Amino acid sequence: MLINGIVTDLLPASDRGLQYGDGLFETIAVVDGEPQLWAAHMARLATGCEVLQLPPPENELLLQEVRQLCAKGKKTILKIIMTRGSGGRGYRFPENVAVTRLLSVHPWPDYPSTHYQHGITATVCDTRLASHSALAGIKHLNRLEQVLARNEWQGNDIHEGLMLDHHDNVIEGTMSNLFIIEGDTLITPYLNECGINGVMRETVLALAIRLNITTCIETVSLARLKAASACFVTNSIIGLWPLRALDDITYQPAKMTQDLIRALSEQHLITIAT
Amino acid sequence: MLINGIVTDLLPASDRGLQYGDGLFETIAVVDGEPQLWAAHMARLATGCEVLQLPPPENELLLQEVRQLCAKGKKTILKIIMTRGSGGRGYRFPENVAVTRLLSVHPWPDYPSTHYQHGITATVCDTRLASHSALAGIKHLNRLEQVLARNEWQGNDIHEGLMLDHHDNVIEGTMSNLFIIEGDTLITPYLNECGINGVMRETVLALAIRLNITTCIETVSLARLKAASACFVTNSIIGLWPLRALDDITYQPAKMTQDLIRALSEQHLITIAT
Repeated sequence: MLINGIVTDLLPASDRGLQYGDGLFETIAVVDGEPQLWAAHMARLATGCEVLQLPPPENELLLQEVRQLCAKGKKTILKIIMTRGSGGRGYRFPENVAVTRLLSVHPWPDYPSTHYQHGITATVCDTRLASHSALAGIKHLNRLEQVLARNEWQGNDIHEGLMLDHHDNVIEGTMSNLFIIEGDTLITPYLNECGINGVMRETVLALAIRLNITTCIETVSLARLKAASACFVTNSIIGLWPLRALDDITYQPAKMTQDLIRALSEQHLITIAT
Repeated sequence: MLINGIVTDLLPASDRGLQYGDGLFETIAVVDGEPQLWAAHMARLATGCEVLQLPPPENELLLQEVRQLCAKGKKTILKIIMTRGSGGRGYRFPENVAVTRLLSVHPWPDYPSTHYQHGITATVCDTRLASHSALAGIKHLNRLEQVLARNEWQGNDIHEGLMLDHHDNVIEGTMSNLFIIEGDTLITPYLNECGINGVMRETVLALAIRLNITTCIETVSLARLKAASACFVTNSIIGLWPLRALDDITYQPAKMTQDLIRALSEQHLITIAT
């Protein structure tokens, strides 16, 4: 772990990341020492910095530190946290903000490769995403809703939980974005009021457009999700997982989903054979 | 600062308090070594632990540590943070949760004593509180909305900012709860969907009932706040501050407010003369 360029795993407890969740993070796949979709991750981090009125991320410095931390040849997960640094008690920004930059490397999870072909099982969580958030879209450190939602199920039979807003619209998974397929059309929910604008969501949207798939960003009710011909979830680590089942609903495999998986695999954003 | 009973100000960066804001806090006035309204603070902390599915706070142990940290004779602020401790990457609770317990002491702020008689100036913040939060009422570590709201104004002419939900109902201040007075009735907003259930709010409600003041917990629109005959804000450190002005609105002094200030002062929860 590197904190402000120093090899340590200890942080001053006065850091506003701890005190208020006053910061942002990125979770990035690193393949053979190369952070994947780096520009997109840095763009989202920069957007988050604008919303939180933090100084913009120092991309070159971050990239140097990624190279220092991530060995070649191994597939790993990199987590970058940026906080507003240490400050006195109280919500007011410190007079001179010295951002905290924290990079940590984590082992690649052993998700079964069969998830890409056979799909996963998901559930609808009881924990809702609060609506009309000023923080919608950005990947900030206030993640208690996701923590509570993820802990609604135990064991390994369920692989993801989907979260609704209070209008019974589905927004995303606890750790992923959601797409549904209706005929030849690909739809992903609006994230104007809550949810995280995922880097892999953006990548899949761009890919779909390149593959001449009609794509829409729309409100997706739970009823609409259940009636969809297929659906899948995305994030930077898993890439894309089709849903085989959502509670008592089952979905059939979809050609569009497999086309997108193949396209992601060609871009080395998914490794099908482990 | 004491972290799990050890004198240190360094925390493992893997702590879920930093990673997700996965924890709670209390801010407590300490007078002559005695934490004020201790039972009420511990009760709210216990409620928060239930909502977050954390082990309950160890009151006796915390009280011992407060006594160790807080010298007699001085008036100080104590902040207690409880987190779900360290865990691997991902929102899932660690298998064996070892809670992090963090106590820090801060200097008493030099708020002017005249605030009690003459009141403060407040503003209405643009940053809204997200609605329908599963976390309403508890004092959790996800405080980005308050951070953004508090930083909408600079300088010392404005002392507090009031926050609305997206229905234009006023909920609370960035660091306080709100009360309005309509004739002989005292009203404080509902906190069912957002906001923090303040210990001083509870104390003032109980005091008002003892003083035979009619008290209501209701929806308070911004229009209603502006039309109120008087209003004030409360928290555990300031006690109770009347509002002299809210943006372009001015309020007259109210006998009820001064009665409540006197009652809080008699309970040593406000020190009028510094």
